Amino acid sequence: MAKKYFEDFAVGYEVETGKVKVTLEMIKDFARQYDPQDIHLDEEKAKDSILGRLVGSAWQTAALTIKLMVEAKPLGDTPVIGLEVNDFKIPAPMLPGDTIQVRAKITKVWRSKTKPYGFFHMSSETVNQNGEVILSQTWTVIVPTRN
Amino acid sequence: MAKKYFEDFAVGYEVETGKVKVTLEMIKDFARQYDPQDIHLDEEKAKDSILGRLVGSAWQTAALTIKLMVEAKPLGDTPVIGLEVNDFKIPAPMLPGDTIQVRAKITKVWRSKTKPYGFFHMSSETVNQNGEVILSQTWTVIVPTRN
Repeated sequence: MAKKYFEDFAVGYEVETGKVKVTLEMIKDFARQYDPQDIHLDEEKAKDSILGRLVGSAWQTAALTIKLMVEAKPLGDTPVIGLEVNDFKIPAPMLPGDTIQVRAKITKVWRSKTKPYGFFHMSSETVNQNGEVILSQTWTVIVPTRN
Repeated sequence: MAKKYFEDFAVGYEVETGKVKVTLEMIKDFARQYDPQDIHLDEEKAKDSILGRLVGSAWQTAALTIKLMVEAKPLGDTPVIGLEVNDFKIPAPMLPGDTIQVRAKITKVWRSKTKPYGFFHMSSETVNQNGEVILSQTWTVIVPTRN
């Protein structure tokens, strides 16, 4: 697959990724390393939390979202380099056994006035097997221009 | 350590976490699972990227930020549950060998009008051993009220 450049993108460009199944063991493994809270590690103690059950860390949802996006290669062989994230929202939890997928769309494009780069806003939704959104966010991505 | 409640917090409340050293092996291990791009996995190929060298995934910086925050127990034994993240910015890369730390401050507090919860905005900076900010963000956190 070839590299893609700023000129290859426009508002409305859409990406639909593959899917990944999220197991209880994956949730606990991530939590042990990066988000060691009972709500992600201990089924019994998680019952006392606001959510009432064990759920995956939203930061793991975010990391799996990136994995799915990277594997979908929306920029071809050009690396996906994000500069900023906004409106990162968690409307529903990621549960053990969920199968998740990402849908993203470019909502704005602009070119640097001084350097050989362009930028775009890409809004994404990470959804579970029922179509519920479990994470939404908007990335600002930097992409080299062709010339 | 006891649970903390909404009433225990006010604007200006500060958290300074412990530190974690980020090794090349940690960077590659995260990248293999969650952000499999040459810029995080291959020292030679990373030289061709915009950054010109291998760097850690910003999503790993975010995950390590959460680990440091969770271990600092800013809410005592109350779980840290974030609802939203904004202004997630990556002013500098996380490099192999960096030692990182998080400083966070509550910038706004408000109470639900209908439910026994409160909310706050907490702005954080993740810094390296030179004091450079490598990730900044603002979390919206939900906390139960005491009564």
